Amino acid sequence: MPKEKKLVEAITSMEVDFAQWYTDVVKKAELIDYSSVKGCMIIKPDGYAIWENIQTELDRRFKETGVENVYMPMFIPESLLNKEKDHVEGFAPEVAWVTHGGLNPLQERLCVRPTSETLFCDFYKNDIQSYRDLPKVYNQWCSVVRWEKETRPFLRSREFLWQEGHTAHATAEEAEERTIQMLNVYADFCEQELAIPVVRGKKTDKEKFAGAEATYTIEALMHDGKALQSGTSHNFGDGFARAFGIQYTDKDNKLQFVHQTSWGMTTRLIGAIIMVHGDDSGLSLPPRIAPTQAMIIPIQQHKEGVLEKTMELKELLAAEGVRVKVDDSEKSPGWKFAEQEMRGIPIRIEIGPKDIEAGQCIMVRRDTREKIAASLEEAAKSAKELLAKIQQDMFMRAKKHRDEHIYDAHNYEEFTEIIRTKPGFIRAMWCGEQACEDRIKEDFAATARCMPFHDKEEIASVCVCCGKPAHKLVYWGKAY
Amino acid sequence: MPKEKKLVEAITSMEVDFAQWYTDVVKKAELIDYSSVKGCMIIKPDGYAIWENIQTELDRRFKETGVENVYMPMFIPESLLNKEKDHVEGFAPEVAWVTHGGLNPLQERLCVRPTSETLFCDFYKNDIQSYRDLPKVYNQWCSVVRWEKETRPFLRSREFLWQEGHTAHATAEEAEERTIQMLNVYADFCEQELAIPVVRGKKTDKEKFAGAEATYTIEALMHDGKALQSGTSHNFGDGFARAFGIQYTDKDNKLQFVHQTSWGMTTRLIGAIIMVHGDDSGLSLPPRIAPTQAMIIPIQQHKEGVLEKTMELKELLAAEGVRVKVDDSEKSPGWKFAEQEMRGIPIRIEIGPKDIEAGQCIMVRRDTREKIAASLEEAAKSAKELLAKIQQDMFMRAKKHRDEHIYDAHNYEEFTEIIRTKPGFIRAMWCGEQACEDRIKEDFAATARCMPFHDKEEIASVCVCCGKPAHKLVYWGKAY
Repeated sequence: MPKEKKLVEAITSMEVDFAQWYTDVVKKAELIDYSSVKGCMIIKPDGYAIWENIQTELDRRFKETGVENVYMPMFIPESLLNKEKDHVEGFAPEVAWVTHGGLNPLQERLCVRPTSETLFCDFYKNDIQSYRDLPKVYNQWCSVVRWEKETRPFLRSREFLWQEGHTAHATAEEAEERTIQMLNVYADFCEQELAIPVVRGKKTDKEKFAGAEATYTIEALMHDGKALQSGTSHNFGDGFARAFGIQYTDKDNKLQFVHQTSWGMTTRLIGAIIMVHGDDSGLSLPPRIAPTQAMIIPIQQHKEGVLEKTMELKELLAAEGVRVKVDDSEKSPGWKFAEQEMRGIPIRIEIGPKDIEAGQCIMVRRDTREKIAASLEEAAKSAKELLAKIQQDMFMRAKKHRDEHIYDAHNYEEFTEIIRTKPGFIRAMWCGEQACEDRIKEDFAATARCMPFHDKEEIASVCVCCGKPAHKLVYWGKAY
Repeated sequence: MPKEKKLVEAITSMEVDFAQWYTDVVKKAELIDYSSVKGCMIIKPDGYAIWENIQTELDRRFKETGVENVYMPMFIPESLLNKEKDHVEGFAPEVAWVTHGGLNPLQERLCVRPTSETLFCDFYKNDIQSYRDLPKVYNQWCSVVRWEKETRPFLRSREFLWQEGHTAHATAEEAEERTIQMLNVYADFCEQELAIPVVRGKKTDKEKFAGAEATYTIEALMHDGKALQSGTSHNFGDGFARAFGIQYTDKDNKLQFVHQTSWGMTTRLIGAIIMVHGDDSGLSLPPRIAPTQAMIIPIQQHKEGVLEKTMELKELLAAEGVRVKVDDSEKSPGWKFAEQEMRGIPIRIEIGPKDIEAGQCIMVRRDTREKIAASLEEAAKSAKELLAKIQQDMFMRAKKHRDEHIYDAHNYEEFTEIIRTKPGFIRAMWCGEQACEDRIKEDFAATARCMPFHDKEEIASVCVCCGKPAHKLVYWGKAY
């Protein structure tokens, strides 16, 4: 069966070349295609459907916390971008500039938004007058542009899709509370929907967002042991408010500056799903986020009654809310199996003449390949239970893998040994000096991923780098 | 009560100055705000929530017809835009050009998409090989940019939100069928969801889309008698396919060009809702598209039991799927009434101590101000029935207004008389020569809105303009 093997053969094994494996999956699972615009990708139907599910579920969780959606212009006048010093220094080197409108040069050039803090500030400056106007808890879904030199589908592209929340509050406490609240929404979303365990923590000053007082992050570990920053939440304090003059009259009729936050998640989450759950057969999607949860593949479909029973089964599952499709194309079953596995559909259901005779069908898990016979009558119930079990198992498996790839380093020798031989997170103490971060980055191309919230153990009393007294535990790693 | 009148006083009457009335409503109903980016608007929560409802319902209808969503880059290289001659001539004068990425000039400048035919063609060229790959029925939700000189919120802005469908088919017949199918989806959506009656028809060659073989349109009539093009669907034939080389192998193994369509609807629909249904008290939203369908306003809310009963009522309605809110702020009821009317919320529900005693509440229709007493027990049922009735009545009222503003002109004298005195559509015969269209545009700033599908009556035998034999009935009008 040369034709049937083609689909699978074309994928590089992840053990041989993880980067090539990733590119192969992204293309073969038909998530993206390259475009004539260097560094920009085309998100194809199967890729976009995952993003739609991410949007729907995240948006629902946002709105439960009182978020309202808005839409800001995609352009930022240069003078506006320049208003906050740290922010412009962070972004100006990597923005795309519009210099002409139609046939005429613009009086002031406009950048295509790399992020919209400046636009929201410019808006809030006029929209917020009194304490009664607070808080503002706005979000927008849009695309942004950052002129990256090296690009990779989903992980780093010149244009990407995201949501960006921007809030304004009366007090510093309220802003900090919202910052942490949104980070927790992100973490819960990743763990419950994407089956991706994350470490929640705070960024070092070196790694924080341009213009932020504090940046919080969730960090996930990919199958190859590299970290992926999967969502960030920033507390700006009143820095932007002072730069833009966003003031309100409080209850005592005094002028006060607002306190602001922003938080974002992007299409890079799709990259995380691929690199956490995928295998050498292709993509493997957590059921809750999978556009198609079950693919029914009839066996000997031209035999009498097989297609009828297949369609009955489909209706049964669909009626119970399972996202189900039938592949009754003229391809061979083997080809269809390979395709369903490549596309990461969580359950394959096989049904042939013998199954029908026995009143059953065969459910095959994408994640483990385990085959389970299920009675046709109870098929919907079985499928739903199996989807829930797969979701849970995928999370536990990813968590086990993550936990097995966290190593402790008590001194620079240990750190060196680990980072050279064991991909994963390294837990090590840090004195707080940027010089030590710089040295580790220089020596190993590794960065401080975060100072974790829930893991404050002091595994040593001195900095892993300089040996001075240290009380901060840091997760270090190489990152995408 | 000076404070309470302020909200209403600030609106210009639509009879005095329709354009100013429109701007007042857009601002006072808090749909948009102006931004520091000339010609670009900020869509505020109440405006964006209407767009979200439009998106959800349109997207559902699209998917029922087999549409799949994708995402294309927002940039188009100049050489790609130049590939189809008519298309580039139509769009190049009004695009925004990116010339720098970061600190470096680009080798080739990129325009920000004004529409994405060229990107889809470039993609289809590689993605389509065989008849098995057809049809492709893709759509994307995104923002586009056209560097307009004169801008108005929702109606004409330099950036706007829209959906653009782009399909490829094996045959000319199939492409034509899809073009008409989507126009009908648009028309049904406008009439059923937005309560806006539309005329379906074909554009003249002068008015068709740059690069299209045929453009179909739905035209709505605003309250001031001006037309608004509310959605268009284009059949490209194989013109783009020839320009881009999009070919497939048919069942007989012969190379064929694909046939393509595109179709779009935009945030200008929100402008249509305002100008069809609004009045001197502000916005008036059709219930099916209203983010909030009922606003409960407690009367004497500090009296014992009023707020409790108000919240009970809210839960009752929400449980039955009514999108309901309570305004229990410290503003006076009069102020709240004016605000609810300005925001166009279809039903106001008043509930005070006397109502509670009588076991009832008062429902007030936004469209007619009619007051209806409803028993508290049956309130959810009453609200749902009332919402359905309002939706129906709003459509019938808009249709009556539209129908009363359609006039027949049999010769140029009649045409002149009508267009100078009676705002609306003018039905008149046309010979098919562009010279006549040009003359009418020159003399009256009016255009051929469409040649209607369902109204083929020949009201005269000669062209209204030149007097030569004519068989084409045209709806003429001044348009936004």
